[in-house]
Amino acid sequence: MKAYESRSIQRVFLVACGGSCALMYPSKYLLDHEAKTITAEVYSSNEFIHRNPKTLDENALVILCSHKGKTPETTEAAKFAKNNGAMTVSLMYVEDAPLKNESDYIVNYSWAPAGKKEQYSEIMNYAVLYRLTLGLLYVKEGNEKYHSLLSSLDSLGEVFEKADDQFRDKAKQYAEKIRDEDIIYTMASGSNYGVAYTFAICILMEMQWVHSHAIHAGEFFHGPFEIVDKDVPFILLKGLDDTRPLEERAEIFLKQYTDKVLVLDAEELDLSDLDLEMRGYLAPMVINYVLRLHAVEIAEERNHPLETRRYMFKVAY
Amino acid sequence: MKAYESRSIQRVFLVACGGSCALMYPSKYLLDHEAKTITAEVYSSNEFIHRNPKTLDENALVILCSHKGKTPETTEAAKFAKNNGAMTVSLMYVEDAPLKNESDYIVNYSWAPAGKKEQYSEIMNYAVLYRLTLGLLYVKEGNEKYHSLLSSLDSLGEVFEKADDQFRDKAKQYAEKIRDEDIIYTMASGSNYGVAYTFAICILMEMQWVHSHAIHAGEFFHGPFEIVDKDVPFILLKGLDDTRPLEERAEIFLKQYTDKVLVLDAEELDLSDLDLEMRGYLAPMVINYVLRLHAVEIAEERNHPLETRRYMFKVAY
Repeated sequence: MKAYESRSIQRVFLVACGGSCALMYPSKYLLDHEAKTITAEVYSSNEFIHRNPKTLDENALVILCSHKGKTPETTEAAKFAKNNGAMTVSLMYVEDAPLKNESDYIVNYSWAPAGKKEQYSEIMNYAVLYRLTLGLLYVKEGNEKYHSLLSSLDSLGEVFEKADDQFRDKAKQYAEKIRDEDIIYTMASGSNYGVAYTFAICILMEMQWVHSHAIHAGEFFHGPFEIVDKDVPFILLKGLDDTRPLEERAEIFLKQYTDKVLVLDAEELDLSDLDLEMRGYLAPMVINYVLRLHAVEIAEERNHPLETRRYMFKVAY
Repeated sequence: MKAYESRSIQRVFLVACGGSCALMYPSKYLLDHEAKTITAEVYSSNEFIHRNPKTLDENALVILCSHKGKTPETTEAAKFAKNNGAMTVSLMYVEDAPLKNESDYIVNYSWAPAGKKEQYSEIMNYAVLYRLTLGLLYVKEGNEKYHSLLSSLDSLGEVFEKADDQFRDKAKQYAEKIRDEDIIYTMASGSNYGVAYTFAICILMEMQWVHSHAIHAGEFFHGPFEIVDKDVPFILLKGLDDTRPLEERAEIFLKQYTDKVLVLDAEELDLSDLDLEMRGYLAPMVINYVLRLHAVEIAEERNHPLETRRYMFKVAY
């Protein structure tokens, strides 16, 4: 917070790879929706470096994330950003790693494997990101929702508890139903798109070797929906932000034309512990928790552990 | 051009749906890479409206596109942008349509169906977009590459002629090879990503009912690549912009782990008629032309005309 005060910040670049990059989407949504003077962009680390945005300068804040702090592209991106004069803040789960040496500031976050409740707290990855981005708007633009964020994050543990009780059995039933599918699409819009993206690329493609694609719920009707038929499975996320009408429209179509749709609707969750004005922003975190319950059950049912890889960290690439 | 002079423009929003939205990606790349003071964002029309970016005001330029000018979300987006004080410029193929009534300026572009040479000229959709975006930088920041763009666009017709001669037979051979595939991934980075995206959602999913997904070549190694095996088909685009190393890295991996990869490399095209400094930006247009040749042959080989739809304009959605 103090660091923000010392600089003019006109642009935020949210930079990371894969699952860590997906984490950035809700914060971009928040910045787009709330910031009067600051723009936000999400880039995969290597794209960021090579694209070399000309507006990356001393008026930019670059927020990076790498779980173990040793994703080479992200470390390189931090170095690149610093060399261009930007302020760099990096999130890591571990305390010491190469990324630390290339960043102005490091913020650690809590984490536990999917399906374990401990990971869900006010210092988990999404929460830390929101604190950094809404915190920026608090300092620079006096956005008072920051207080509401902090108090809501304090209650997040209980919200996850309730979601866990509500969805553990349902997740198992879903896993039994789709165990033999070789393609499953995910879909969402707004602050929830990143959650659909991470479930597609990290859980289904990377950890289960199931074909997938995160379709944007608005784009769906301009091409992708022609792929739908009775046998094509979809997971549709319905959040509580202002883009919900896009997800609702997709739901009506999917329910009519495929028999294999799972709808995870934040309205069915008990979010009463969260401030009303924060629910749209925090719903992706809860939906992500619920999806991780599904991941665990799918892995179990398919007898394909979430840790199994054929290429990652095994071959040269 | 005159219109640009009358306004302060700090932000460009590129807004459209589906294939028209995909058109916007190369222009975003150009703005990111060249603009010193102006930021650029791409949004699907309905996401743009509901996300409601707070920086959308009288200092914003909103460029929209709808082929027939009657995509309801895009007309609505133009209206929304104007109500927020932004300048709106809309691209259409037709001369008169609802989008016109909601836009400050209309620019028409030339077009012909895939595989027909007439569509490729200095007033085709991508070309008009570049003229609008690089033209903005010429007016606002004195970017002299604008002249280079104009002279290169004059030669585009010949470039397409040569690409046509070079790839028509190859496209047919490729179509024969993949006619029975039910999933084909596409991949690219930088200015070429939009071309991979439009081939995935418009050609493969919409027009051929083949499962697909445009994977970003940098993100590929952070999840999606675990899906690769000998039998999984990929189309990899290699452009000439500064993100080419990402595409080269993906190529090495794909050639090692799948037997079904088509690489379309802009270095194999004869681009000698284009100014050297424009080749990176214009390569996506030529690659897109080559891909459209493939689309025609794939449709022919699969006996599934590009015009066939089951939902679009046929059912309510």
